[in-house]
Amino acid sequence: MSVSESHTYRPPSLPQISVGGFWRSRIAAVREHTAPVLYERAVAAGTLDQVDVDKPVPELRIPIGPSGDTQQMFWDSDIGKIIEAYAYLVSDKRDPAIEERVDYLVGLLKKLQQPDGYLNSWFTRMQPGKRWTNLRDCHEMYNAGHLLEGAVAYYQATGKREFLDIMERYLDHIADQFGTGEGQKRGYPGHEELELALMSLYRLTGDQKRLDLASYFINERGRLPHYFDQEAADRGEKVNKRPSANHEYSQSHKPVREQDKVVGHAVRAMYLYSGMADVAMETGDDSLRQALDKLWDDLTSKRLYLTGGMGPSKENEGFTADYDFPNESAYAETCASIGLVFWARRMLGFGPNTRYADVMEQALYNGVLSGMSLDGAKFFYENPLESRGDHRRWEWHQCPCCPPNLARLTASIGTYIYGQSENGIAVHLFCDSTGHFDIAGGKVTLTQETRYPWDGKVAIRVGVENVDRFTLSARIPGWSRNTTATLNGDKVELEMNVQDGYLTLDRQWKDGDILVLTIPLDTRVIWPHPEIRQNAGRIALARGPLLYCLASADNPFPLNRIRVRPDTSFVPEFRQDILDGVTVLKAPARLVATEGWGTTLYRESAPLLVDTTITAVPYFAWDNREAGEMLVWMPVDSQG
Amino acid sequence: MSVSESHTYRPPSLPQISVGGFWRSRIAAVREHTAPVLYERAVAAGTLDQVDVDKPVPELRIPIGPSGDTQQMFWDSDIGKIIEAYAYLVSDKRDPAIEERVDYLVGLLKKLQQPDGYLNSWFTRMQPGKRWTNLRDCHEMYNAGHLLEGAVAYYQATGKREFLDIMERYLDHIADQFGTGEGQKRGYPGHEELELALMSLYRLTGDQKRLDLASYFINERGRLPHYFDQEAADRGEKVNKRPSANHEYSQSHKPVREQDKVVGHAVRAMYLYSGMADVAMETGDDSLRQALDKLWDDLTSKRLYLTGGMGPSKENEGFTADYDFPNESAYAETCASIGLVFWARRMLGFGPNTRYADVMEQALYNGVLSGMSLDGAKFFYENPLESRGDHRRWEWHQCPCCPPNLARLTASIGTYIYGQSENGIAVHLFCDSTGHFDIAGGKVTLTQETRYPWDGKVAIRVGVENVDRFTLSARIPGWSRNTTATLNGDKVELEMNVQDGYLTLDRQWKDGDILVLTIPLDTRVIWPHPEIRQNAGRIALARGPLLYCLASADNPFPLNRIRVRPDTSFVPEFRQDILDGVTVLKAPARLVATEGWGTTLYRESAPLLVDTTITAVPYFAWDNREAGEMLVWMPVDSQG
Repeated sequence: MSVSESHTYRPPSLPQISVGGFWRSRIAAVREHTAPVLYERAVAAGTLDQVDVDKPVPELRIPIGPSGDTQQMFWDSDIGKIIEAYAYLVSDKRDPAIEERVDYLVGLLKKLQQPDGYLNSWFTRMQPGKRWTNLRDCHEMYNAGHLLEGAVAYYQATGKREFLDIMERYLDHIADQFGTGEGQKRGYPGHEELELALMSLYRLTGDQKRLDLASYFINERGRLPHYFDQEAADRGEKVNKRPSANHEYSQSHKPVREQDKVVGHAVRAMYLYSGMADVAMETGDDSLRQALDKLWDDLTSKRLYLTGGMGPSKENEGFTADYDFPNESAYAETCASIGLVFWARRMLGFGPNTRYADVMEQALYNGVLSGMSLDGAKFFYENPLESRGDHRRWEWHQCPCCPPNLARLTASIGTYIYGQSENGIAVHLFCDSTGHFDIAGGKVTLTQETRYPWDGKVAIRVGVENVDRFTLSARIPGWSRNTTATLNGDKVELEMNVQDGYLTLDRQWKDGDILVLTIPLDTRVIWPHPEIRQNAGRIALARGPLLYCLASADNPFPLNRIRVRPDTSFVPEFRQDILDGVTVLKAPARLVATEGWGTTLYRESAPLLVDTTITAVPYFAWDNREAGEMLVWMPVDSQG
Repeated sequence: MSVSESHTYRPPSLPQISVGGFWRSRIAAVREHTAPVLYERAVAAGTLDQVDVDKPVPELRIPIGPSGDTQQMFWDSDIGKIIEAYAYLVSDKRDPAIEERVDYLVGLLKKLQQPDGYLNSWFTRMQPGKRWTNLRDCHEMYNAGHLLEGAVAYYQATGKREFLDIMERYLDHIADQFGTGEGQKRGYPGHEELELALMSLYRLTGDQKRLDLASYFINERGRLPHYFDQEAADRGEKVNKRPSANHEYSQSHKPVREQDKVVGHAVRAMYLYSGMADVAMETGDDSLRQALDKLWDDLTSKRLYLTGGMGPSKENEGFTADYDFPNESAYAETCASIGLVFWARRMLGFGPNTRYADVMEQALYNGVLSGMSLDGAKFFYENPLESRGDHRRWEWHQCPCCPPNLARLTASIGTYIYGQSENGIAVHLFCDSTGHFDIAGGKVTLTQETRYPWDGKVAIRVGVENVDRFTLSARIPGWSRNTTATLNGDKVELEMNVQDGYLTLDRQWKDGDILVLTIPLDTRVIWPHPEIRQNAGRIALARGPLLYCLASADNPFPLNRIRVRPDTSFVPEFRQDILDGVTVLKAPARLVATEGWGTTLYRESAPLLVDTTITAVPYFAWDNREAGEMLVWMPVDSQG
């Protein structure tokens, strides 16, 4: 379907992949708990009442802020994300009850849609007459994007076109209103999202109009005179102290190709860069890709938490100064890490490169997964790296963006495991799974067997049918050391065959070939960049893709009293009895003694240190037991 | 004048003491810059317009909050504190221009006073009819207290009675309204202050009514049914999410004698405890003193910053959990440290004890002094222990409580240096000064000569006239080691003569006797309590009463990149050329190198350390040069 015939890699569609192993349990949690919670809470919040024109116009439930906006303005996006998540669950396993719910929601949206195609519950029912007057704050295009992603996913899962048709009509309306033509407004999304959604529609239908609109949004962003300023003046807005009044907040402070620093609201940034990557890939626009590479460097060299989280500040839900990594007050919104997974996956579209896959995996297994309890029923909005035990997952949130985002990403994880080009398949992530690919005129089946992330052995069985030759690229994680590989039992020389961190085998494959990667999962002691003031004198632990942390449940003392030597040997131990089964890391350490310290707060002699043992657990699994402290960055033992 | 004939120590009146040395320069800064700033800003803010009934009722300048309160409600307190500060400056040196200003302000207050004695600009002019309806939030009694302190000070400085008479009438009105009698309201101050002010009036006049009212306020506080709840119900107040709705905020969560934990708004707490100490001393009520000792232990063992600051949280301007000492976000309001000086001085009234004097000195030289620029023209509200260079002193503040508080404390510092009992004089602080005391039927003059806090030698010359014998108590600071003393050149055996940390000499003094203390000012490396998580792996520096810090101006690198060995020898050097002359501390240290680190944020090998030299300056003097980082707690060097 793509207009581009280059050797770019696209994710497979979800029905091509069946997922087992580690991620199967996450999908099961989403199916069992998250999916019903999403719907129930949308009903309880009043979201459905707002969308349903057969109901009386509901009362305002969430106050209107100083810019005339309210979180109720983006309830449509919740509907879109719920439908998208449900679509992926249906792809994974048909479920008439889920489909019935989606069809009901689609029916509500159909009745809500205006004769001119406009589709937005807030501006149709709550504030009629104000549509398209505040793109900066009011999330109209953001809502459209999430609804569109839902429509595309539901069509792919079921073949049902109705929602897609609704959205096509709405997009026609939007394309009519906005653009560089005469009489059109030169607006673009205040919260990016529609750009990437348009691109997923474009990949589905090949309709050039959708690519053109996405490209227009990308190209127009940040041009002067500034659209948001003009719009604010038209509204008669005077001083606005909201973060959004600063154009960095929405990455519209300059044209996107001139941007080289990751700024503003973190989720907005990730969604923009994802959309830019889609457009760059489908148009071959190298100037966009160059900007993205600079932004990637900036993010990963100055503002990415070790969790794959980002955006330390609650104030702007986003970025601050270089190397600013508060631990206890880290905002690091779950949705931002999810957005990074979206962006990284798209950067992998330019060809397998572990530079992107490492970060995608880092965010997935840490900052994303931590957003959800093991049972899928409770959620974090913020993902700090230290807690006194007062940061707990909640059942719902006034701004419930994260749970459906977690659900749609988890339920579609299969499409992140692999990438596919004209005659290549890339293995980006390791997970028990089977993938079916049409390639080079024939069919290829890849079957992964692995206990990853608990064990580093990955067996990939290749099935072929009418295929001449193709390239299989299997990722060697950037953090790994001494990975070995065998093909049908014979050692593969890695030095010769690794390209951008992927073992790349371009050969005639035989049905039943088995490629085995053995990735040693050594415990790694991690030092922070010298400029990270909050982590001075501290180290962290990782094993494979998993970041580790200390939790009170395993270490019954105030966690900042431990002292760890950097040369400590940590012993991994798989524990089936805790946290649904995780590998823990155990080691000797020392504890700063309070015994003998006295009653003063400060004194002139160093405290005594006593021997102890510490046990670290995967970061993503913290706060699934009783409330207690958590610590990622542990103080180094500095006393003789 | 006192009703109590016990051996308690009271501060001398200000005219008894003339101050030189270190504190003279601070008084000069207050006289030259702070004093005019106070008045100019009160004019600019509109404070005088609100008080002046000959002016039209002014517009609201500071918004009214959710409880119907506004900072404008406590503008009267600013007038009171300005008058008090001005009175101390007049005591120090008569100044007709200053007196003219005070007389003008007193004239405004006289015209403002209502026929029934009531005196409050807000409820007379801005919200007439609402007086005494919200003691919890509206600061009426707090205002009365500050006006009263101003009136007492101005009378002592000048003998002028007019303001005192105004306040006596107002107090009669308050005593009429509040109490346990029939028809009286059982209210008490929401923000404590009037209690201690009543006690200073009582000490001046001996009028039992004033002691009775102060005692009533202290005794009534926290009783059930809770007055603030009843009052809120009477106002029809429903849910109130302000911190003040929690009675811990105002230390009214239980009767004061049952309180053993320092909670709530920090300034409120310090003012309450000061008032309690005054009442305990003048009534001999041991149950109050026992409560105060528990509260003192709690404060100093769990919630006192090394600066003598307290109250880490901006949210409640006050206290949080045990051992919670954020550095960069420390609130540690200047006024809270000032309040601690008030409380500590009153605890010294029970007899010289370096347990209290050490803390008084710690707060004075660090958390209090840091609140004012060296020239007296700019001010901190918050006093963090770490800064990235964005925390700067301001010229004024919407809530300008700290500058006049700094001015009145600094200008009256003479009364903190000494304490006087029936036949004893205590030297609590070291500073060039002369004190005149009527004692044991005769006259004693003490003259201190010292370069303290830069040098630890203190010579105290004793002049006597018609005095038989008296006790001279000279403090040996708790942080000092190996202090020696000589009397007229002969060594004094300290072990025998030290009581509660004071060298106590009860003897027949001869005119011209010279007592010399030699207090070694060694640099001290300070370790934090093991439970202070924010300072894990960090140490601080002090010399004498001064806490030290690193500042960018002397250390041109990110301060958290330094690593210091605890056994480092720091060399003091007096530098006349910086910060109006301070002793700096120099030492070798190491710097975490960014060279060779690479572009990643995290890596598996420790960074390189390179040798460097660091220079620390007194904490109180930071941010008097160009903007830059500041750090108190330095990371310990943990690498071999």
